[in-house]
Amino acid sequence: MAQEDVFKKLVSHCKEYGFVFPSSEIYDGLAAVYDYGQMGVELKNNIKKYWWDSMVMLHENIVGIDSAIFMHPTIWKASGHVDAFNDPLIDNKDSKKRYRADVLIEDCIAKMDEKIEKEVEKAAKRFGDSFDEKLFRETNPRVLEHKAKRDELHARYAKAMNDGDLNELRQIILDYDIVCPISGTKNWTEVRQFNLMFSTEMGSTADGSMKVYLRPETAQGIFVNFLNVQKTGRMRIPFGIAQIGKAFRNEIVARQFIFRMREFEQMEMQFFVRPGEELKWFEKWKETRLKWHKALGLGDQKYRFHDHEKLAHYANAATDIEFEMPFGFKEVEGIHSRTNFDLGNHEKFSGKKIQYFDPELGESYTPYVIETSIGVDRMFLSVMAAAYCEETLDNGESRVVLRLPAPLAPVKVAVMPLVRKDGLPEKAREIINSLRFDFNCQYDEKDSIGKRYRRQDAIGTPFCVTVDHQTLEDHTVTVRFRDTMEQQRVDIDQLQSLIGEQVSLKSLLKKVAE
Amino acid sequence: MAQEDVFKKLVSHCKEYGFVFPSSEIYDGLAAVYDYGQMGVELKNNIKKYWWDSMVMLHENIVGIDSAIFMHPTIWKASGHVDAFNDPLIDNKDSKKRYRADVLIEDCIAKMDEKIEKEVEKAAKRFGDSFDEKLFRETNPRVLEHKAKRDELHARYAKAMNDGDLNELRQIILDYDIVCPISGTKNWTEVRQFNLMFSTEMGSTADGSMKVYLRPETAQGIFVNFLNVQKTGRMRIPFGIAQIGKAFRNEIVARQFIFRMREFEQMEMQFFVRPGEELKWFEKWKETRLKWHKALGLGDQKYRFHDHEKLAHYANAATDIEFEMPFGFKEVEGIHSRTNFDLGNHEKFSGKKIQYFDPELGESYTPYVIETSIGVDRMFLSVMAAAYCEETLDNGESRVVLRLPAPLAPVKVAVMPLVRKDGLPEKAREIINSLRFDFNCQYDEKDSIGKRYRRQDAIGTPFCVTVDHQTLEDHTVTVRFRDTMEQQRVDIDQLQSLIGEQVSLKSLLKKVAE
Repeated sequence: MAQEDVFKKLVSHCKEYGFVFPSSEIYDGLAAVYDYGQMGVELKNNIKKYWWDSMVMLHENIVGIDSAIFMHPTIWKASGHVDAFNDPLIDNKDSKKRYRADVLIEDCIAKMDEKIEKEVEKAAKRFGDSFDEKLFRETNPRVLEHKAKRDELHARYAKAMNDGDLNELRQIILDYDIVCPISGTKNWTEVRQFNLMFSTEMGSTADGSMKVYLRPETAQGIFVNFLNVQKTGRMRIPFGIAQIGKAFRNEIVARQFIFRMREFEQMEMQFFVRPGEELKWFEKWKETRLKWHKALGLGDQKYRFHDHEKLAHYANAATDIEFEMPFGFKEVEGIHSRTNFDLGNHEKFSGKKIQYFDPELGESYTPYVIETSIGVDRMFLSVMAAAYCEETLDNGESRVVLRLPAPLAPVKVAVMPLVRKDGLPEKAREIINSLRFDFNCQYDEKDSIGKRYRRQDAIGTPFCVTVDHQTLEDHTVTVRFRDTMEQQRVDIDQLQSLIGEQVSLKSLLKKVAE
Repeated sequence: MAQEDVFKKLVSHCKEYGFVFPSSEIYDGLAAVYDYGQMGVELKNNIKKYWWDSMVMLHENIVGIDSAIFMHPTIWKASGHVDAFNDPLIDNKDSKKRYRADVLIEDCIAKMDEKIEKEVEKAAKRFGDSFDEKLFRETNPRVLEHKAKRDELHARYAKAMNDGDLNELRQIILDYDIVCPISGTKNWTEVRQFNLMFSTEMGSTADGSMKVYLRPETAQGIFVNFLNVQKTGRMRIPFGIAQIGKAFRNEIVARQFIFRMREFEQMEMQFFVRPGEELKWFEKWKETRLKWHKALGLGDQKYRFHDHEKLAHYANAATDIEFEMPFGFKEVEGIHSRTNFDLGNHEKFSGKKIQYFDPELGESYTPYVIETSIGVDRMFLSVMAAAYCEETLDNGESRVVLRLPAPLAPVKVAVMPLVRKDGLPEKAREIINSLRFDFNCQYDEKDSIGKRYRRQDAIGTPFCVTVDHQTLEDHTVTVRFRDTMEQQRVDIDQLQSLIGEQVSLKSLLKKVAE
């Protein structure tokens, strides 16, 4: 099945089984905003707990905070967001549609890449087994021509973005005959910068109100609390502060479902280190974070690092952990060496001294920072994409199964009476009563057992427990395993430990701590 | 100690030990916004988990969701917030200060009440043991005069508020000689309505952007997802949908620390029932929720119900669960019978049919709703207030101890080597390694054991484990209990179960489920 179709199916599965709904759907939705349904919220909470426990509970030198979304507006001056957190926008005068100039150009580059790939595909068909792809790419005149044109555009574009040259961006669009997909014309306005922060007015005094922003990242909430946490928590460098929370960006072109949303959630950790030691810690955190991802068992080959060539103004090293989504390898987490940029700027803008006295060195300094930043929603999407699976069974039937890591599954165990009589429902509820303080359980008595299994497969429940007449005689039940569909007869008293071993977060945490 | 002083001490304790910091403090703060520090975030998360597990995990017919803060703006028309979620504001022309007209009048009523109480106090002193307070209140001419005046004002004020009569509110202020506390004058402007919702602009198309609101309550996110959850979750009435999330209100006079903030967090559950059965369920949820609070063991006498006389436009019954804060009994949770107001209005405004087909009755209807709504931050404050305790010990020393319910404590166990040598630190860390997958642990080796105990008392850690030379010989440690300060020698292998029994949320959940 084409990857595009897989993605469409995944999106509709998310809605059909209560994982993700379009926000305000009965009012025809709100663009690029989504709600998590009854299954989605459990999966999301489990992902957050996995991150929090690995970061905060397992690290003696990492603590959490929960800072507010509203912050003093000068913070965003200090961080550079007021001046530099912009998208370059351009309007087509005929269609009246607005676009990101950089996206228009990137799409044009992507089309050039496609042309090259098509040449390669055509040749591969023509030459069959004897085809030498590498040689063809390096010598074919048409490919080389396309590639030269593409590289020229890319270089010009990269320079314009680096210089913040809006006129040059517009000129590129004109030079390369980039047209509006709606009107098909080149009737473009100037390119203007558009700030991505949402703003609102706080308070109402006779003197007026104060313009505040919805934070575009949670990181600054950590930086401005650095001194408070360090002093009251008696923290010694190196140490980290972790936070999970909402952030907001007024994206012009938000797309790909929950991958890029206007309201999203971050899990960020800022690790404070001695100046000069930051690159050592950068490497350490790259390794630690990748291990965290791989411990989920979604497939090691689905991850790769993407080191940034172009660095943000505050960074001296940066890498992404990319995950293979149905639409290609995409960033799920960023690891950045942010230098002392943020703390230094807050010292400058707030007028408060933000330094750390290092008792071992006997001197004070502005700490350097390694940041690990992960999007909860992207993580959610990557887990769902990896787990979603359509299978054809031996009997020719097909099933959709979510192969979620058991500790992340929304429902851990479904308990089902074989029939709705003879005391079986009562027995099933009795079993739930003994398990529900430890696991999220679901009771299901409707439809055939086969249908009920399918429903649980579709939401990723690792265990189904069936109560039948034999249960009343010998205190045993049938446990059916999601992935193998194998069934096993076990004593009711064994359920707790059988399920517990598989679904507890502890098993994941132990892998991470190894 | 006066209750006012207790409150001041609590606020400064919250800051000193990393529970709550003023937001953006290095920028001199942001009014009525607070951040949770490294201890606060753990306590807050534990409170949220206690609520979530009691509501969602323990109830077969309650599921959760996590809807976005941004919602379609028409939702707030349908809910009544655009038109009616207002505060009446008035400015003093001399001081240029702005006030809530209703608060000015309520303060005036409170002063009249004080006058009555002073008369009673004076008389009580004069008459001593023979004083009959009830008789005095009912017959003393001065008391009766004050009371008549007070009741007259109260009735006039209640009518004006009910009628939404802004001119009359202003007239009351003038008639009762209410002056600005700053300027001391009666030079007042008109009274104007001020909407409490924060708004922002979303998107940027050539056609313009869309005005959206930051949700002032999480409830509407549940109502607009009613059909999605009911259908995809195959829910049958009666059933509930629970949600935890941020809400925002542009309060003019925000005060009392985290009790009334501009950004706050709610835990709301909407329970959908058959029309006509709502008051039965209202009573049921009153009882269930009170039990949840009392299970924490903060003292049953600290809770009371406060039934609303004046009902909101959407309700046919409402009560608050009040908790005894240092500044009096205050609402921590509201239980409301919201009728079919919200679902009915969303049907009207969205044009989509929002009905439930009841298979037992064989008919469709708009469900009625019982809401339980609790402020996370208020709950946090109530737990902290009840737990905060200054004690004088037998030896004359004093200690500050947070008697937090153990399952809510931020740190469950501190492990301390008696001295920083002879292998004791290594042994302590070994113990932490065996406990850290189950409990939030803290390692502390600095200062005397006594000082370290005090530090753990101040953050409410239920157990301190001390490693000494004997530990290396017989594999035992000293466990010291926070509340009794008793010490007990136990085998290291017993720690897991000793601590686990006390700190697990399960013990609380079992009380709630009884």
